[in-house]
Amino acid sequence: MGKRAVILLSGGLDSATCLAMAIDQGFEPVVVSYNYDQRHRVELEAAMAIAQHYNVVEHLIFDVGMFRQIGGSALTDNIDVPKSRTLEQMTSQIPVTYVPARNTVFLSYALGVAEVYEASDLFIGVNALDYAGYPDCRPEYIHAFEAMANLAIKPGVEGQHIRVHAPLIDKTKAEIIAIGRELRVPYQLTHSCYAPSSDGVACGTCDACILRRDGFEEVGMADPTRYVSVA
Amino acid sequence: MGKRAVILLSGGLDSATCLAMAIDQGFEPVVVSYNYDQRHRVELEAAMAIAQHYNVVEHLIFDVGMFRQIGGSALTDNIDVPKSRTLEQMTSQIPVTYVPARNTVFLSYALGVAEVYEASDLFIGVNALDYAGYPDCRPEYIHAFEAMANLAIKPGVEGQHIRVHAPLIDKTKAEIIAIGRELRVPYQLTHSCYAPSSDGVACGTCDACILRRDGFEEVGMADPTRYVSVA
Repeated sequence: MGKRAVILLSGGLDSATCLAMAIDQGFEPVVVSYNYDQRHRVELEAAMAIAQHYNVVEHLIFDVGMFRQIGGSALTDNIDVPKSRTLEQMTSQIPVTYVPARNTVFLSYALGVAEVYEASDLFIGVNALDYAGYPDCRPEYIHAFEAMANLAIKPGVEGQHIRVHAPLIDKTKAEIIAIGRELRVPYQLTHSCYAPSSDGVACGTCDACILRRDGFEEVGMADPTRYVSVA
Repeated sequence: MGKRAVILLSGGLDSATCLAMAIDQGFEPVVVSYNYDQRHRVELEAAMAIAQHYNVVEHLIFDVGMFRQIGGSALTDNIDVPKSRTLEQMTSQIPVTYVPARNTVFLSYALGVAEVYEASDLFIGVNALDYAGYPDCRPEYIHAFEAMANLAIKPGVEGQHIRVHAPLIDKTKAEIIAIGRELRVPYQLTHSCYAPSSDGVACGTCDACILRRDGFEEVGMADPTRYVSVA
């Protein structure tokens, strides 16, 4: 039996690859997902299918109502999700799809889970290239969270080192997909779209869809996603 | 109009004093409280009464189900709350009333609120003397959280300094009560007991009751709390 790790799984391509990497490194995965009334709730179903595919130790799904309560993001609020943007447009400023303090809240939950499940490793699939505009996707943020984590919980204080792994942080989408292909990540189960139709079909034009489609194209692999629009 | 600050208010004596201090310093308080299925839910009603007393800008109450979901604490789990302990016993080890990652989760929520409500100051009434056994009540933890916060949210990244105030961290209970007396904190509205009776009467013998009673006694002020036991 390997060492346990807590893996944040959204149901998207990045976090699914991150889970596969943790398993490949010999960790026993305790998976956490969040229901935060996100527009793209279909991603939670994707997370469940992926967790099942990997036969994980435990899959904890937490209800986090606060993001809708406080508002301030296109993912939880009545703000339009931007469409058909270039990579430069996506990364030149903090986008409206940024959710205030989201990764901090998610990692804090994962930290509580780590203590209770006796795991000292956390994995998060954040990426600083595609999400350059998000403060909480950058390496300096991850390092600061890790430093805080080691002072926040019992095992950290008692000398166990808590590590926050962000193995995709400096990778392009194509590089991530190439790693995932190697590890046989079930990409047909993943969901990326921020603004899917009511039956869960990807829009094809939001930032997340564009990044995904370009990534699969670059790596020369067929994207198993069904898209509404292929503009 | 003053500058806004986000204040964590449990409904206890410490956080009520902390709120009064923030107001005294000229901050406009946005108050946050948490419903986490704590045994002492009566404290939430106390928090509401205190927020109302101070006529705060906004009082946000968040449901946080995760602590009960993951367990591991006497405050949310079926573990007995310790009774009639000396201060030395309370602080010699991490107590069972410690909730894994609680302050980290609470402060993370407050950070999201700070961003949305355009506040760059957070107040938390943690105390390192009475809660010496809690990793997340120590100054080094608060500093590490503040460092992380400045990298986590938009205002921090855009150059505004996020400050986490813990003005009670090095104070004894008597010192806290003396400050609160000066600021006319409505202590009759506060609730401290970890294990109240079903109608909300304080037990008088849990750690929180003992600290409170000793504090009032030391400062020579009548404790307005009704106790079941006065052993």
